[in-house]
Amino acid sequence: MNHPAPPVAARRPFAAELVDKLREAFGNRFSTSEAVRVHHGRDESRYDPQLPDAVVFASSTEDVLAAVKLCAQYGAPIIPYGSGSSLEGHLLAVEGGVSIDLSGMNRVLSINAEDLTATVEPGISRKQLNESLRDTGLFFPIDPGADASIGGMSATRASGTNAVRYGTMRENVLGLTAVLADGRVIKTGTRARKSSAGYDLTRLFVGSEGTLGVITEITVRLYPQPEAVSAAVCAFHSMADAVRAVIETIQTGVPIARVEFIDSLAVRAINRHSNLTLREAPTLFFEFHGTAASVEEQAQQVQEIAAHNGGEGFEWATRPEERSRLWNARHNAYFAMLQLQPGCRAVTTDVCVPISRLAECVIETEADLKTSPLLCPIVGHVGDGNFHVLMLLDPGKPEEIEEAERLNRRIVERALAMDGTCTGEHGVGLHKMDFLAEEHGADAVDTMRAIKHALDPHNLMNPGKIFAWTA
Amino acid sequence: MNHPAPPVAARRPFAAELVDKLREAFGNRFSTSEAVRVHHGRDESRYDPQLPDAVVFASSTEDVLAAVKLCAQYGAPIIPYGSGSSLEGHLLAVEGGVSIDLSGMNRVLSINAEDLTATVEPGISRKQLNESLRDTGLFFPIDPGADASIGGMSATRASGTNAVRYGTMRENVLGLTAVLADGRVIKTGTRARKSSAGYDLTRLFVGSEGTLGVITEITVRLYPQPEAVSAAVCAFHSMADAVRAVIETIQTGVPIARVEFIDSLAVRAINRHSNLTLREAPTLFFEFHGTAASVEEQAQQVQEIAAHNGGEGFEWATRPEERSRLWNARHNAYFAMLQLQPGCRAVTTDVCVPISRLAECVIETEADLKTSPLLCPIVGHVGDGNFHVLMLLDPGKPEEIEEAERLNRRIVERALAMDGTCTGEHGVGLHKMDFLAEEHGADAVDTMRAIKHALDPHNLMNPGKIFAWTA
Repeated sequence: MNHPAPPVAARRPFAAELVDKLREAFGNRFSTSEAVRVHHGRDESRYDPQLPDAVVFASSTEDVLAAVKLCAQYGAPIIPYGSGSSLEGHLLAVEGGVSIDLSGMNRVLSINAEDLTATVEPGISRKQLNESLRDTGLFFPIDPGADASIGGMSATRASGTNAVRYGTMRENVLGLTAVLADGRVIKTGTRARKSSAGYDLTRLFVGSEGTLGVITEITVRLYPQPEAVSAAVCAFHSMADAVRAVIETIQTGVPIARVEFIDSLAVRAINRHSNLTLREAPTLFFEFHGTAASVEEQAQQVQEIAAHNGGEGFEWATRPEERSRLWNARHNAYFAMLQLQPGCRAVTTDVCVPISRLAECVIETEADLKTSPLLCPIVGHVGDGNFHVLMLLDPGKPEEIEEAERLNRRIVERALAMDGTCTGEHGVGLHKMDFLAEEHGADAVDTMRAIKHALDPHNLMNPGKIFAWTA
Repeated sequence: MNHPAPPVAARRPFAAELVDKLREAFGNRFSTSEAVRVHHGRDESRYDPQLPDAVVFASSTEDVLAAVKLCAQYGAPIIPYGSGSSLEGHLLAVEGGVSIDLSGMNRVLSINAEDLTATVEPGISRKQLNESLRDTGLFFPIDPGADASIGGMSATRASGTNAVRYGTMRENVLGLTAVLADGRVIKTGTRARKSSAGYDLTRLFVGSEGTLGVITEITVRLYPQPEAVSAAVCAFHSMADAVRAVIETIQTGVPIARVEFIDSLAVRAINRHSNLTLREAPTLFFEFHGTAASVEEQAQQVQEIAAHNGGEGFEWATRPEERSRLWNARHNAYFAMLQLQPGCRAVTTDVCVPISRLAECVIETEADLKTSPLLCPIVGHVGDGNFHVLMLLDPGKPEEIEEAERLNRRIVERALAMDGTCTGEHGVGLHKMDFLAEEHGADAVDTMRAIKHALDPHNLMNPGKIFAWTA
């Protein structure tokens, strides 16, 4: 069922005339060079590149529209490209076609500080956006490990370390503009905080992974920077103890902003990569946001809960530099973990389970990993029930790929049996297509397919991702 | 453009054979009696009833499926019925057909206290659900004025007074089961708090107003009951002052749980109906949730902000009985306001604007209302930028209906010009169909229509609502 290699689809013929017309329209913002195509036909997944036939560098919604219209005319697939940080093969041109690079569309179009909203182009990265907000007293909380683009984060319904308090892209995109396959440009949502006006097209495009259209503008929610922030680190005897501390925290209603799990092996990787000296034990990183008094109170509550679950050496990082160091280390964990085994690539699991099942899920997973020859550090957004096992492998050894996919399958099946999901935040891409029907059932996937057929009847938009065109 | 009477569609022929088959299948849970049909062909809107041909009282998903299959076989419309509290004509059988009454499906199927989730049948009301949660220390926060059903609230993407802190049904439905027109039963979502697994069918059904399928199970998020709660009332010189106090509160990041605006006329109505003695002035009701210390701190911050905006007579209601009395009065405001003019019915606006435009929107609206002969109290969920003008009218006087619709149109157009929405929480139903294209543009509405055509190709599911079948 699960393919060690990504599903192979036939590449579609790519018309020479389309090349001419795109070159005419985009001049030096169009490329068919091998190097550019290789760059756009790969991502951070373990897959080998599958190259698009051409790349267009778009500067505006009009550019995207022009490219989409030409592609539609010649039946060429369209693959939106943001920052290339997908872990699931989203950017591979499995049927060929045109990669539309949106990284040049990185402007902040407006910031409405009073309404706590900003409207941005899709190519802006989360760090660039926060840089633009620096003087406003506001911030945008969604923070996947990579400095992903807001467009890509919308397309994959991404989250990160702040989701336990601030939600995911699902909750934080108020509206967007998208170019559809038939050349219509639609605007979904308004800047109102809530609405009951018709079908929720915004939420339909959030998480659609480029398969329904190209997102060209996004309005997101912002938040006031908290008056006070404090962070802490605490080591535990076992992952299960750490997870229990988190469950108790959530159930007590402490409005914790971040709580991240890092296992011993991941701590070792982070220590090396970010020059830290954390104890190599199952560890939680915490962050608290609020007024000075409320932050102190939250931290006090959590410290008690941690102690009660065998947490040791609760250490504070209250100064901004210390906090930044800690959270930068966490954000760089993916690359730090890859460096545990030079030259490796990784298969990353992304399951998310109801939090009541998290301890059990993690304990059983640890037992699985102990029997495996692969090096498998674990990190997790435990406040959401979401964790990642990085299975490090030598891409030249098929048996290691097979072993990683075997582990991945066991972990996903366990999560689904616990009423969880195969992907908490990375998306389906190529890698989890087989799991989708297992998770939702064939009828629900058929319902998704019916929507895809209705909005993209010629299968132009990022074909071959999420689910197959035919059942 | 805007119809004083609801759009009239041709009633479809209703086969005698379908009556026989439904009677055979449902026995005394099937009715064609005039009284039952009148009850199911109306709602709380000003519209005259439009009767379904028959009513089925469903007890299970299997019942709904059986009824849907029979209706599909004979081409009969299907209208899901929860508690009948729609304000927008959702329940009127404009093309005839079968009303499926779900009020008997009111069980709590499971409560997962550790995960803060519950799975319920659609007919359970929000009060019944909270009654069931009484011993768990948890609560479900979404609270429209009426004791609406969770199914109806899901179908209209409802909210209420707690949305500023806890979100709307959009944020609080984790997954659902729906019976589609072709007899497929799909389950959307899992109990995981977040997921990136495919199109967000949950959010597509939330707000679809019965036009895509019949919702038969819903998994909702629950919240720990706050350790401490306090409420307060404060009068202002003007609505604009009150609104400014709210904007400042939100921008300061105070995690206020509720903040409701009530104008002088609405205060009078509430005083009479609920036997209170509030000063007849523009008034805000506040509620704070948290630990004892954080509630005190929040209240202190808000009291200062209120004073700074001319708020007077900040009064506390800390005892549970006092608080209940206050919020019951707020929840009964709709009926209290109707009693300002015995025998009247109401047209209710439901616009929601970005909060930076709220003061301006409200000031211009007040000026409009001053020139009108109709009695028009105002209440609002101002923390969300959402407010309701109740235009009381004598349903026997067409000129009053026309005047109310004229005011409604002006208010909606103002909100749309401010990048707001025509409906914050009541839904489109029959009443706002014309506004939908103005708000989203024809292409976005066409996109919604394409989805409707794909999932309900014979237009069986609550036809004639939200948008017309053909453009």
